[in-house]
Amino acid sequence: MSELDTLIQLLARLPGLGPRSARRAALHLIKRREGLMMPLAAAMQGAAAAVRPCSQCGNLDTMDPCAICRDPERDATVICVVEDLADLWALERTAAFRGRYHVLGGTLSALDGVGPEDLNISRLITRLGPGMELILALNATVEGQTTAHYIADRAEPTGAKVSRLAQGVPIGGELDYLDEGTLTAALNARRAL
Amino acid sequence: MSELDTLIQLLARLPGLGPRSARRAALHLIKRREGLMMPLAAAMQGAAAAVRPCSQCGNLDTMDPCAICRDPERDATVICVVEDLADLWALERTAAFRGRYHVLGGTLSALDGVGPEDLNISRLITRLGPGMELILALNATVEGQTTAHYIADRAEPTGAKVSRLAQGVPIGGELDYLDEGTLTAALNARRAL
Repeated sequence: MSELDTLIQLLARLPGLGPRSARRAALHLIKRREGLMMPLAAAMQGAAAAVRPCSQCGNLDTMDPCAICRDPERDATVICVVEDLADLWALERTAAFRGRYHVLGGTLSALDGVGPEDLNISRLITRLGPGMELILALNATVEGQTTAHYIADRAEPTGAKVSRLAQGVPIGGELDYLDEGTLTAALNARRAL
Repeated sequence: MSELDTLIQLLARLPGLGPRSARRAALHLIKRREGLMMPLAAAMQGAAAAVRPCSQCGNLDTMDPCAICRDPERDATVICVVEDLADLWALERTAAFRGRYHVLGGTLSALDGVGPEDLNISRLITRLGPGMELILALNATVEGQTTAHYIADRAEPTGAKVSRLAQGVPIGGELDYLDEGTLTAALNARRAL
């Protein structure tokens, strides 16, 4: 059973799959040898060979610069900073942002030994200048906010305007179920109707 | 983004992964190109090339007959019938069964148009004879029990003894949370202390 065991062990290392669901996934693949297992193996090899980080923004794409950085329709004077590629994808799904991105690849964390030189920050600063806007779309966690403050300090001398995502009640959110921090932020940032 | 999109779409077809977790898995793979993505692609191709159903019992293995059918330590006079390979694996994890298996590959289902000829049943009957025991380890569902009765009828002329798994209160189960069917089965099959 060695080939099957290897497959199961590697599948179990994917996020969201444990040992039991990795066995189910392996069985599912073996039963769909031509329709799923071979195409998936080929897609992994294709992605491994073709996908590279964009030298401008850190997004992953088969081209460098990436499709977003090359798109002349997108506003090059607005740069949205995200922690991770998943956050970029989440923002792209909204279709509400027509500027460009910068992917940091993590957040500052003294505990995990992640310093500014470990993140894609110096490259970000070289992209900024007067008349530009930098939107800090970092997670509302301690690490995310620490990183946001650090980047805001570094960006200041470039003359770029710095903003961050609004904090408040999520759409569909019920006050009764929200934490005190969110409610306090929503109260403090209340807007005239 | 075509290579990445292909990868995400194929990953989303694995059981237990939806669109969001497929994106997370793809990102996880891309970040671990050498350590996980290439080995996993190779393991899939290896398994696709090497793993075949055992001509005796329907188990999947790189050898035919499979390791269980070849093992001289395992009792060839006791055959445990399971619906699926996952059930065989579940029984093997208990290490409580030292006989051989027979994997049906499904259950009879008039609704889904699955008849006896679609399952690995005829091969099972040829393996049976007087002095042998057939254990029906099928799911306690309507389809499982229909299939169990059908196989018991087919096995009768071979002279093999037919049994099925006990039904009752699961270990650690609380009566308060059990359904009426299980409680009724447990009451009817009560044993003297």
